[in-house]
Amino acid sequence: MTHVFDEATAVEQVAPGTFRAHTHPAYNNMVGPFGGITAATVVAALQRHPEAQGHPLSLTINYAAPISEGAWDIAVTVLKTNRTNQHFTFLIDQGDGAVASGTAVFGTRRETWGDTEIAFPQVGTPEDYAEQPFPDFIEWAKNYETRFVTGSLNIDGPSDSSESTLWLRDKPARALDYPALASLADAFFPRAFLRRGTYLPAGTISLTTYFHASPAELDQQAGEHLLGTAVGARFGHGHFDQYAQLWGRNGTLLATTHQLVYFKDPKA
Amino acid sequence: MTHVFDEATAVEQVAPGTFRAHTHPAYNNMVGPFGGITAATVVAALQRHPEAQGHPLSLTINYAAPISEGAWDIAVTVLKTNRTNQHFTFLIDQGDGAVASGTAVFGTRRETWGDTEIAFPQVGTPEDYAEQPFPDFIEWAKNYETRFVTGSLNIDGPSDSSESTLWLRDKPARALDYPALASLADAFFPRAFLRRGTYLPAGTISLTTYFHASPAELDQQAGEHLLGTAVGARFGHGHFDQYAQLWGRNGTLLATTHQLVYFKDPKA
Repeated sequence: MTHVFDEATAVEQVAPGTFRAHTHPAYNNMVGPFGGITAATVVAALQRHPEAQGHPLSLTINYAAPISEGAWDIAVTVLKTNRTNQHFTFLIDQGDGAVASGTAVFGTRRETWGDTEIAFPQVGTPEDYAEQPFPDFIEWAKNYETRFVTGSLNIDGPSDSSESTLWLRDKPARALDYPALASLADAFFPRAFLRRGTYLPAGTISLTTYFHASPAELDQQAGEHLLGTAVGARFGHGHFDQYAQLWGRNGTLLATTHQLVYFKDPKA
Repeated sequence: MTHVFDEATAVEQVAPGTFRAHTHPAYNNMVGPFGGITAATVVAALQRHPEAQGHPLSLTINYAAPISEGAWDIAVTVLKTNRTNQHFTFLIDQGDGAVASGTAVFGTRRETWGDTEIAFPQVGTPEDYAEQPFPDFIEWAKNYETRFVTGSLNIDGPSDSSESTLWLRDKPARALDYPALASLADAFFPRAFLRRGTYLPAGTISLTTYFHASPAELDQQAGEHLLGTAVGARFGHGHFDQYAQLWGRNGTLLATTHQLVYFKDPKA
């Protein structure tokens, strides 16, 4: 049986370097599809590109307009292929103008000295925390099992902290790959919800993810929970940033990710 | 008298949406120009674009190849202009293929609720720290006054911490604007130098900066020192990330920035 994530991120090359994808109702957000599934589909398309070399190192996607229900096309340009890395640009179009754009870098991973300098958060095991889903109207979140350590959407008023820390994984569980990691990197709802103690109109403008995991490190995660932690730095003037880390249960830092978000504050 | 930064970031529109820039010897790095001055020049070009609306919110630039000495062209596409933000893509070319690519978002800043959630680092005033320049062979750094609190390039062996915290500003002092902030966001040398206790071949692959400062907040900084702090999260497989904040002396968080860096470790 095909996992719903694979259905949603399926792409078909319709012209050299152009891939067709389709929105999937299971990953709907309040307006248009969940940004994470769009990012994941881009990664899937880049990996399918006949000239692709190596594996994803970084992805930046800028969301310019909501994607409408139905087909959408990703036009990929291989900008430069170096000895150890490869640069891409891409445009997402639905026939009447671009709705998103971005860049990506793939690379060959060599064995070198390495260290993870930031610390794994002090938390219990996934089994220590009850499953706590997002509210029912957030369709895409039903595809994730979420066990919050702190900062769930069970909001009871404003908070001084925008931090969410949670164990999460695809639901049903699925082996981890780069598209899945790209999607999980956007599975943190807008930090302003916690600060303001309420849902607000908000949307990601720009999302950047750095993929630290090697293919072998992804394989090691299998279908286990990942630990995610996200926080904002500055809120104001209708925007805020948030940054997050995704860790393997085995302590491997798999990805770091940053985004700039637009928001409207009805209380302002 | 024209400030050397303005000389180095000068652009001229040579075709609709295409701007010509020139490398400047004062901002040379070990191979090609300092990435910060390239990013700053892109911001300057975007601001000069006849269709530009609002002010920089985010910039991502991917460095695909070193820029050679001489002229280089930035081809800017206005992808989408929304009511409160505007999406750009750009390519940098030197006549025989792209050397860099990227995306940017400009936006209109509205008055909203705001807060800076992360804390200003606990440091003394700029005057409490001696000026400590980068080594003489790092040409671009001569255009910055740097007063290190911790993590200078006065390296005496490997360290468990990749943190640098320093007061810094243009030298000679110069009023702060978005191009200058874009350049300062890249003024943190590769974090692997501190971890490995030595200079290494290293170069930025992808750089993203979020501009939190409003034009009025930039004006408030005048020519004062900014506080910068940078640290890496994970090093390995020939790459690492680093993230940094730039604060005004008055406590305003002006920018947050992230980059993915390639490195070679002669000790490996």
